[in-house]
Amino acid sequence: MTRPRNDTFLRALMREPVEYTPIWLMRQAGRYLPEYNETRRRAGSFLNLCKNPAAACEVTLQPLARFELDAAILFSDILTVPDAMGLGLYFAEGEGPKFERPLRQEWEIRNLAVPDPYAELRYVMDAVAEIRRALGNSVPLIGFSGSPFTLACYMVEGGGSDDFRRIKTLVYDRPDLAHHILEVTARAVTAYLNAQIESGAQAVMLFDTWGGTLPAWAYREFSLAYMQQVVQGLKREHAGERVPVIVFTKGGGQWLEQIAGIGCDAVGLDWTTDIAAARARVGDRVALQGNLDPMALFASPERIGDAARRILDDFGPGPGHVFNLGHGISQFTPPEHVNALVDCVHGHSRALRATSATAA
Amino acid sequence: MTRPRNDTFLRALMREPVEYTPIWLMRQAGRYLPEYNETRRRAGSFLNLCKNPAAACEVTLQPLARFELDAAILFSDILTVPDAMGLGLYFAEGEGPKFERPLRQEWEIRNLAVPDPYAELRYVMDAVAEIRRALGNSVPLIGFSGSPFTLACYMVEGGGSDDFRRIKTLVYDRPDLAHHILEVTARAVTAYLNAQIESGAQAVMLFDTWGGTLPAWAYREFSLAYMQQVVQGLKREHAGERVPVIVFTKGGGQWLEQIAGIGCDAVGLDWTTDIAAARARVGDRVALQGNLDPMALFASPERIGDAARRILDDFGPGPGHVFNLGHGISQFTPPEHVNALVDCVHGHSRALRATSATAA
Repeated sequence: MTRPRNDTFLRALMREPVEYTPIWLMRQAGRYLPEYNETRRRAGSFLNLCKNPAAACEVTLQPLARFELDAAILFSDILTVPDAMGLGLYFAEGEGPKFERPLRQEWEIRNLAVPDPYAELRYVMDAVAEIRRALGNSVPLIGFSGSPFTLACYMVEGGGSDDFRRIKTLVYDRPDLAHHILEVTARAVTAYLNAQIESGAQAVMLFDTWGGTLPAWAYREFSLAYMQQVVQGLKREHAGERVPVIVFTKGGGQWLEQIAGIGCDAVGLDWTTDIAAARARVGDRVALQGNLDPMALFASPERIGDAARRILDDFGPGPGHVFNLGHGISQFTPPEHVNALVDCVHGHSRALRATSATAA
Repeated sequence: MTRPRNDTFLRALMREPVEYTPIWLMRQAGRYLPEYNETRRRAGSFLNLCKNPAAACEVTLQPLARFELDAAILFSDILTVPDAMGLGLYFAEGEGPKFERPLRQEWEIRNLAVPDPYAELRYVMDAVAEIRRALGNSVPLIGFSGSPFTLACYMVEGGGSDDFRRIKTLVYDRPDLAHHILEVTARAVTAYLNAQIESGAQAVMLFDTWGGTLPAWAYREFSLAYMQQVVQGLKREHAGERVPVIVFTKGGGQWLEQIAGIGCDAVGLDWTTDIAAARARVGDRVALQGNLDPMALFASPERIGDAARRILDDFGPGPGHVFNLGHGISQFTPPEHVNALVDCVHGHSRALRATSATAA
């Protein structure tokens, strides 16, 4: 396969020169889009949408039809891997994800096994292939997985949590069991992402939504170490093209140097981190992805532009920036505000390069 | 007034030598204690408890009867100031704090005024005086307030929030109005804390629970600047004794140098920050308070000891450490686990000083 016509996103991840700063948005296919809600209504549920490759393909492409985005991201859930491990993912109305069989007993933990991504997770690989065909040669497709620690949080808590009491009690009291869950899950995530790459994903991202709730030492030992294991096990080249890897820990701003050191190509930043300071800290080791506050999209288009320009100016015209939000887009976002953001990022980043070229 | 017999906490805050590391716990008087639940039941509600000085005094003293804590903290709510401004604080069953009249219109914001702490907040000053009498000469009493930004979050949102959409929309779209709320609130908090000091509080703490949800630049402009204004307006000496000030921003680990620069005596750390790294970053400018993960208290007493010793060892035997949790104690904590923590902190910190004295 050849590179997409618009490979700005891939080049920015590899810190190659680009004409403008590429942009995509975490959760860009989602509930803030009326067309998504319509497809979801027809599918009957969120899980049906994830498990039906044609429907997943349809919603993946929806934001690209509306906005000049520089990448598509596979539409799926972060909990597909534990679901394939047999935990029984379901969504209670208005309550977020839950597992029918959370890990509560030591024997349940000891019985965990790595699922075959081409069997239990076949529907994801079919979706990746179908989306690649539908995208044709336009923009690259990002594959993704939850990080081992983030998956373990849900697997042990049985759903979302305010305080992560169960998983943390395991970390403090039975670190051996926590490590066992993480070790099996890291192998499962590695196989899952490699299968996505083989099926056509042109970049992959690890979402570590909950690693930032750990003390620094426990983050290194229970989250970062397993993301490193995953990154080191990934196929970094497929069909003659390099496949870049992005690692994002929400709340990980204190640990950027360490995250940048695990072998990834890019580090995702949440909106609390000053991107200029981040760039100074990681130097030219990795590209950075981020980091507009998702709530900034509720301001007027003019103020959205101010907030986006601040980030572009802070990063500067140098290579290695992919613009994004610092977390998933809110379901209440007015879609037309996304147009304002995308236009501003493309326009201002071109202007910034022109000014810097003239100055030089 | 003279210093309390046990002034270890005050000396540690001022970075003077102490024989052991003092400890108190955020939310140490609270729902994890059966005696607290009994008093609250008799009072009829949480707000009655806050507004009745005798009841507030009773629950303030309860944890000191059980544990060898080195400080008491005024039992009150962080939203007393906006309540006194007329917003109408109430608690819906199982839902957390709410305001009957949140700030939704520009005229409501323009009408905000600083309440007289000796009138609308008389009940707090009476509680401070009563607690001081009851404490006698034993341990110091800490007064506190929510930070201006944290109060503004509740005042604008009308209660807790997952995403702080309303307050952030104000910050992005109408920074003039956000600044007006913060400016009035900062004056109110200053007057409120000064009245607590005049009534007998021997140290004061600013709780910035939500400043950490802001981008770095907005944290400086909308949270830190107003905490600086408060700190600079505080009476730092009363009855011949210095009154130290602690500033705590949950999620503020990326900004410690800046927090240490606003004139406070100590900076509170949440549990995600490595305390050794924090100490290296702030040097000898301020003391540090923290920072055990509240969830560590669900582990076995032996593992609680491991986690506490790690923090004490990381800080080292030098001056300027007050042990605490990195956030409020969970209502589900087994009280006897607090005994294990307090004993470990006192015992291990004495041993650490002895070893270091021998080595030197």
